[in-house]
Amino acid sequence: MEASPALSRIGLAGLAVMGQNLALNVAEKGFPISVYNRTTSKVDETVQRAQDEGQLPLFGHYTPREFVLSIKRPRSVVILVKAGSPVDQTIAALSDHMEPGDCIIDGGNEWYENTERRIQEVSNKGLLYLGMGVSGGEEGARNGPSLMPVEDGPCVTYIGEGGSGNFVKMVHNGIEYGDMQLISEAYDVLKHVGGLSNDELAEIFAEWNRGELESFLIEITSDIFRVKDDLGDGFLVDKILDKTGMKGTGKWTVQQAAELSVAAPTIAASLDCRYLSGLKEERENAAEVLKEAGLKEEVGSLAKGIDKKRLIDDVRQALYASKICSYAQGMNLLRAKSVEKGWNLNFGELARIWKGGCIIRAVFLDRIKKAYQRNPNLASLVVDPEFAREMVQRQAAWRRVVGLAISAGISTPGMCASLAYFDTYRRARLPANLVQAQRDLFGAHTYERIDRPGSFHTEWKKSAQKSNAGVGALN
Amino acid sequence: MEASPALSRIGLAGLAVMGQNLALNVAEKGFPISVYNRTTSKVDETVQRAQDEGQLPLFGHYTPREFVLSIKRPRSVVILVKAGSPVDQTIAALSDHMEPGDCIIDGGNEWYENTERRIQEVSNKGLLYLGMGVSGGEEGARNGPSLMPVEDGPCVTYIGEGGSGNFVKMVHNGIEYGDMQLISEAYDVLKHVGGLSNDELAEIFAEWNRGELESFLIEITSDIFRVKDDLGDGFLVDKILDKTGMKGTGKWTVQQAAELSVAAPTIAASLDCRYLSGLKEERENAAEVLKEAGLKEEVGSLAKGIDKKRLIDDVRQALYASKICSYAQGMNLLRAKSVEKGWNLNFGELARIWKGGCIIRAVFLDRIKKAYQRNPNLASLVVDPEFAREMVQRQAAWRRVVGLAISAGISTPGMCASLAYFDTYRRARLPANLVQAQRDLFGAHTYERIDRPGSFHTEWKKSAQKSNAGVGALN
Repeated sequence: MEASPALSRIGLAGLAVMGQNLALNVAEKGFPISVYNRTTSKVDETVQRAQDEGQLPLFGHYTPREFVLSIKRPRSVVILVKAGSPVDQTIAALSDHMEPGDCIIDGGNEWYENTERRIQEVSNKGLLYLGMGVSGGEEGARNGPSLMPVEDGPCVTYIGEGGSGNFVKMVHNGIEYGDMQLISEAYDVLKHVGGLSNDELAEIFAEWNRGELESFLIEITSDIFRVKDDLGDGFLVDKILDKTGMKGTGKWTVQQAAELSVAAPTIAASLDCRYLSGLKEERENAAEVLKEAGLKEEVGSLAKGIDKKRLIDDVRQALYASKICSYAQGMNLLRAKSVEKGWNLNFGELARIWKGGCIIRAVFLDRIKKAYQRNPNLASLVVDPEFAREMVQRQAAWRRVVGLAISAGISTPGMCASLAYFDTYRRARLPANLVQAQRDLFGAHTYERIDRPGSFHTEWKKSAQKSNAGVGALN
Repeated sequence: MEASPALSRIGLAGLAVMGQNLALNVAEKGFPISVYNRTTSKVDETVQRAQDEGQLPLFGHYTPREFVLSIKRPRSVVILVKAGSPVDQTIAALSDHMEPGDCIIDGGNEWYENTERRIQEVSNKGLLYLGMGVSGGEEGARNGPSLMPVEDGPCVTYIGEGGSGNFVKMVHNGIEYGDMQLISEAYDVLKHVGGLSNDELAEIFAEWNRGELESFLIEITSDIFRVKDDLGDGFLVDKILDKTGMKGTGKWTVQQAAELSVAAPTIAASLDCRYLSGLKEERENAAEVLKEAGLKEEVGSLAKGIDKKRLIDDVRQALYASKICSYAQGMNLLRAKSVEKGWNLNFGELARIWKGGCIIRAVFLDRIKKAYQRNPNLASLVVDPEFAREMVQRQAAWRRVVGLAISAGISTPGMCASLAYFDTYRRARLPANLVQAQRDLFGAHTYERIDRPGSFHTEWKKSAQKSNAGVGALN
């Protein structure tokens, strides 16, 4: 153990991937930091890394008491442990040794209501509590994450009271799921319809990263296609099992969307694909049972007759348009919750802090920031004049890609969901009149009319019989 | 008030549309029934209907005590009030006068965990409690609903312990939402792409109701297109506002699907369309802002060049295939919950009781029953040999309809979701390998390989740089 010469500026408890890297980042910036982890080998590991990376001012502690007492008052302690009961256990262990005015900052992917409960609980001891989502993964944590909230500065803003920081991080993760799904669909179409090689894919994603799609996820996708397999021939990406893991935040995002009656189909499609990816054995069986599905021969001829250059350009446009719809869903989910809870979220500011550090960082977020600056009450990103123009310009390519994928048996669930969302939202008249008629017929739920106010109910069966008999319905 | 000459066989509290009709149905079958409602005018209304419909043995009561004491012991009291606290209030009011061995049967659309809580609560007084979903709407309640559960008989089965009856009813409603959405999309395509009139639509749905799609919802859809507007010219369906109402069960179905990691995109799409339908003003604004979207001219030429007969036949096939996928989602959601709770649900039996009475009643349910009889452990309806064959036969038409709708700017969200579900589930290899590579790159989440066991982590950025420099990655 390293003895701390003076008190640390800050403490961090929980030294898994994110915690270690965030602690090293803080230490590297010149802020002495105390670290603690229940499994003590993680403390040793972090201290070792701090020494290896240049004698950084990072000090390991092995008991909650020793850890807390090593921090300068009023204490700020960041905890980065698994969401749920591990957070409660860590708070219990630490708060025994903390004093009024000290502050606990939860940096994990926590359910926002847990944060609201804990704010109340620790306030009895005079402690402050903040839920602060952290995005950026391993590399972001080490070199500059997106923090939601704490104090102002680049990629940091105070988001709002209660659990709002956690809620915003939750939606951020939902959007991240959507982005990853849409990129994997672009890959799928280019590979299976366009017949592109990994080398070509690496080039295309690198090129896309110099245009409107410029973002961390596009950049790393290009890198991924370059990596050779050191355990065999060929490219590593082709050897990776197609079963996707997930954490709770994506699921919560979908459940909250339902709770708030907000449509978020692109985010939901990305979740569904993760669930289905997990059923690898079932899928292998289904592929066998349904081996005549997917129009394989037609795919072959599609790939042969395809104009590669045009397909690549179409896919880029489809990806961009699908992404706008996904972000529109995420922002509207945040707006609905902000209204419900009175959080008064600033959507332009959220887009701004996502521009750097976090996983969804992208040049494109600057356009979202500007859209909300133009109109803070924007009903949807897709009706912002700039985005609307972009959507209209890209719709033909978007429809071609989705249609081609469907006829090739690929179906691009996320791009389809975005397009269906767009087409539903931009239609003044939907076939929902039929649904209302059905509900009134079987459940006497009543309906409204387009031409006059009020609630109406019709005896549909009787009226239909009269019409059938050639007599006008008199209801 | 009607004085009851002898004790009634059963009681029913809650005389809204469903309650009134179910009470009249019971009375008509010769079982004396006591009825009660807090708002007493509903009691009078029901008693009046019972007299008008032939002096049925139905007896109105105006206080909980009088109502309970009018029923033969051990008492069975069905309550049909709004889910949530109205149910608790009704139980509190009635149970004061009930005796050990008496039974309360909740026929509402209740959240299953509320039922599980109430089973515990009333057991302290020695009362029995059953959650029994009722489907069939007004007309079903009056003439023969689908009851989930109580005792055996046509369209009635004991579903399982605890809240299983409510859970099954919840999923039934989710499936019903899906069916209604898919039918409204068929209508949308036939009307806007095919240019069909209401008269033609009435004929087509009537014809479909004589084939594989035969069902209550198809039948009433045909009726709806026949009804003329008695407040103006033309057809009533065209005058109905396209804003769709909803209750909690659809929302719960989507949230439970997320909770259980079950993909239910068709059901979710139907919910999303209801949310979006509610944003009528926003949609009108979006239609104006995005007036160049939707490829209107192309739609025009599509409608002109269309082979109507083939389109109608294609839409029929697309509707049927989409419906199979929606039911596969619902059944798999029931299976996941049954495993979690140890309910041991019998899926063939559920399909059987849905065959008559309820809103989703359809000839098609007999095929589902048989699929589960062939294999009670069926992983998904789409891999049952019979359904698999049907899906393969219909996929070309299905892909044509969805592709045509997309290019016409309609996008059929439910049919798209079903097709994407089908194409994702039947693929042995998904692009989820890329998602896993991304997660490993930015979050050190590790990945599995297709060619050997174990968890792997790669320093992707370093390896990509090496590859870029022309050197094979050594990881």
